[in-house]
Amino acid sequence: MSSYGERLAAVTAERGRLCVGIDPHRGVIEAWGHEYGLAGLEAVARGMVDALGDVVAVFKPQSAFFEAHGSAGVAVLERTIADARAAGALVIVDAKRGDIGSTMAAYADAYLADGSPLAGDALTVSPYLGFGSLQPALDLAHTTGRGLYVLARTSNPEGAGVQTAVGEDGRSVAQGIVDAATEANAESGQGAVGLVIGATREDAGCDVSRFNGSILAPGIGAQGGTIQSLAEIFGPATDRVLPSASREVLMRGPRRAELREAVARLNLR
Amino acid sequence: MSSYGERLAAVTAERGRLCVGIDPHRGVIEAWGHEYGLAGLEAVARGMVDALGDVVAVFKPQSAFFEAHGSAGVAVLERTIADARAAGALVIVDAKRGDIGSTMAAYADAYLADGSPLAGDALTVSPYLGFGSLQPALDLAHTTGRGLYVLARTSNPEGAGVQTAVGEDGRSVAQGIVDAATEANAESGQGAVGLVIGATREDAGCDVSRFNGSILAPGIGAQGGTIQSLAEIFGPATDRVLPSASREVLMRGPRRAELREAVARLNLR
Repeated sequence: MSSYGERLAAVTAERGRLCVGIDPHRGVIEAWGHEYGLAGLEAVARGMVDALGDVVAVFKPQSAFFEAHGSAGVAVLERTIADARAAGALVIVDAKRGDIGSTMAAYADAYLADGSPLAGDALTVSPYLGFGSLQPALDLAHTTGRGLYVLARTSNPEGAGVQTAVGEDGRSVAQGIVDAATEANAESGQGAVGLVIGATREDAGCDVSRFNGSILAPGIGAQGGTIQSLAEIFGPATDRVLPSASREVLMRGPRRAELREAVARLNLR
Repeated sequence: MSSYGERLAAVTAERGRLCVGIDPHRGVIEAWGHEYGLAGLEAVARGMVDALGDVVAVFKPQSAFFEAHGSAGVAVLERTIADARAAGALVIVDAKRGDIGSTMAAYADAYLADGSPLAGDALTVSPYLGFGSLQPALDLAHTTGRGLYVLARTSNPEGAGVQTAVGEDGRSVAQGIVDAATEANAESGQGAVGLVIGATREDAGCDVSRFNGSILAPGIGAQGGTIQSLAEIFGPATDRVLPSASREVLMRGPRRAELREAVARLNLR
């Protein structure tokens, strides 16, 4: 079994480093010519994979937009994940799950276990309950060769109140997450633990110069981030960055050629 | 339409203040005499409501244990929510969702919108992205008379790293959440914003003396918290506390009389 870090390196070497977010909100579904509802959700989500599955390295479906349609929407997420993996792309399920103990283990079972219909290749997780609370997910990710992306420093202005607060050891909350992730990767050697750091601020908001995993950087395109600014934000860690664009690509659909052109334009090799 | 605060006050006045967690993990499903799987999940989750729906004020199904069975498990969660509400109990969907902008709005649509099959009466949310990131959920909760429980200070030891870090204003992250929630309730007058604070530490870990909403306190019973210790932990805010027990009740099933006896013993009036 290959590790998440190895699989990510292989697919991005071949296809480039752009991660395409699948965020089928009402505006996107309507822009694709569908009424807002389950059928429109499925047309957009699976249509994205159909149009781009052979050229995009990583898809990042956003679970919230599927959950908004109830369990039937979650079933569409399962089919979208299956399509993308069948097309040879990796899937980061963007669900920002986080809990403790047996509950965290259950989220791991859902998103990181072999054979689970909701399991992609990696999961975004939220560390409000502490980095250590994520341990059951780390353990399963290491066992199944999957990855985690832990929220560290996000681009929304309201994030600062929590993420820049300073702990007893003098480090910010975000830096504590970065350092704990670095340590977890050093121990496992798998590169299974990534970070989520927004690409729309002036700097990373934390020191990632020693970080040894993948950095998911949402916000490219419609949210104001640019591929050109990544080096300014991330410095020497730029070659670890997986820039992620959602609306900027999604709104070109359902026109296949335009979707592929947007990916070619934004891609990073 | 009545507000969440009004509905919670009415049902707890009638039935007492115990919140019963529905955490159908493998051990519980097997203890109820079922194989681990979808049928066992449904037997436990809906069996809990069947046995207790007329005596428990609030059920708190834990989404992770349903998601672990994929979208079919999420459909069981929908049926469990419907059963509980039909029995006159309130439902706090424990999913600890959190995101920003249109994504947070989509989670709100899933769990707080009228007519959504996943909507209970309240939702637990996680504020790593800042209290302000929850605004789309606050707005919808106020519109539909539903509630939010925001993670503030949890009982797991790893939680301290994030929750006790200190912001520029000299307050801890947890205190910042408490104060923002207090302000939101003062503005709306609805009591829609609650807090999640663990009941298994020596103190609340934050000052809740001015707090004006409901406090969900998980950890009663098997996790070590006791109803007797609530007054020590929460002081004058104790009458706002919704103590929550999961395993302590669940493991008495499927024996109906034992389940009802456990609720009667733990209940708080």
